[in-house]
Amino acid sequence: MELLVDPDFTSEGRLCAEESLHCVKVMRHREGDHVVVTDGRGTRFDCTLAKADARGCELTVETETEMPEPTHELRMAVAPTKNIDRFEWFVEKAVEIGVSRITPIETEHSERTRVRVDRLQRIVVAAAKQSLKYRLPVVDDVTPIADILKADVAEQRFILHCGENPKEHLFNAAKAGVSTIVLIGPEGDFSAREVETALSNGFQECTLGPERLRTETAAMVATNIVALRNQI
Amino acid sequence: MELLVDPDFTSEGRLCAEESLHCVKVMRHREGDHVVVTDGRGTRFDCTLAKADARGCELTVETETEMPEPTHELRMAVAPTKNIDRFEWFVEKAVEIGVSRITPIETEHSERTRVRVDRLQRIVVAAAKQSLKYRLPVVDDVTPIADILKADVAEQRFILHCGENPKEHLFNAAKAGVSTIVLIGPEGDFSAREVETALSNGFQECTLGPERLRTETAAMVATNIVALRNQI
Repeated sequence: MELLVDPDFTSEGRLCAEESLHCVKVMRHREGDHVVVTDGRGTRFDCTLAKADARGCELTVETETEMPEPTHELRMAVAPTKNIDRFEWFVEKAVEIGVSRITPIETEHSERTRVRVDRLQRIVVAAAKQSLKYRLPVVDDVTPIADILKADVAEQRFILHCGENPKEHLFNAAKAGVSTIVLIGPEGDFSAREVETALSNGFQECTLGPERLRTETAAMVATNIVALRNQI
Repeated sequence: MELLVDPDFTSEGRLCAEESLHCVKVMRHREGDHVVVTDGRGTRFDCTLAKADARGCELTVETETEMPEPTHELRMAVAPTKNIDRFEWFVEKAVEIGVSRITPIETEHSERTRVRVDRLQRIVVAAAKQSLKYRLPVVDDVTPIADILKADVAEQRFILHCGENPKEHLFNAAKAGVSTIVLIGPEGDFSAREVETALSNGFQECTLGPERLRTETAAMVATNIVALRNQI
């Protein structure tokens, strides 16, 4: 099964042009087939394909289901990598594993301060379809870290850096069922000033263990740890 | 810091041609610089660059250290993906996170039965250098699953599949400090017969939670979970 994602889809059953093309030409659906559409905001529409038209399919909505809220709310604020493929790879994996919002951040030591948000959003949609997510994670444009280092961004706030202070493992520090933000810095790490500002705003400094991980690996490992904390 | 990896390196200090080129042309080391070499079998050589020659550097070995054994022994036996990039990506990430052996497996529903082992080994070396691993994980050639589904492959043996039986979460099932193998199947999953053979050889069937993960994501998540079990 693969999802069709159309933010404007309603019980009237008209599928947008892009997804109609995908439905007919890629998924090769025929009239009478069962297809599943989501608006990306939590609603699942189980439909029958009434008119297979690559420019605009018509669907008969059989059932409309409000899907359960995700187990946890996680915002990953990550410095984009110099090689954007690595960051895009993280975005795909984070959607599969479970994330609610991805914010590329601009830090003092950032190697990249621009991303193509439209491209990241397409990656999110593709990953959501493939891994059956009925709520599309939000992708922000690059955001100055100062806008993130605030006490109201999430109930529990973590900053992961390589500094020498003894730090608790993220797995032990993270609580389940609490809105969470995790900050992952660039190759050159967060500056001392950034860490200090974070700590004064109630961020907790954590470690992912003894291994030296690339930025995108650390981001993915942290996403997995928070998901795990909410599963077991 | 980045490691130089040369399996034939000894206290005599002659660096192989490939790493000499890397040392001089890419890392741009000059005579008198401190460089670190490993033989990939656990020995760390702290050296001074005595002669910077891209065809063969001469190093003065200052100290020779036997690095600690890894926290855990983990063999990941994974069906290679149709798109080999995805499998190669897993190999890189597994080395960073911590793995001792990677075995591409041939299963009934495999979409790919050939890999270029030399290419995978180069990825292992590059990832080991970058993440400072002094022991190179082994990469096997594609191995029939029948050769893996044996009781003597590891002390604890897990098979992850999507079948309906209620399964324990890998995080709860895995014990620390025990040699471990985890089997990850192809997109089309393991066959019922493969699962049955595994169970009769003391493999435990486990889940990675409710999300639908791609093969390479599942493999990476499982690697991370076993590492985590040994860290916390």
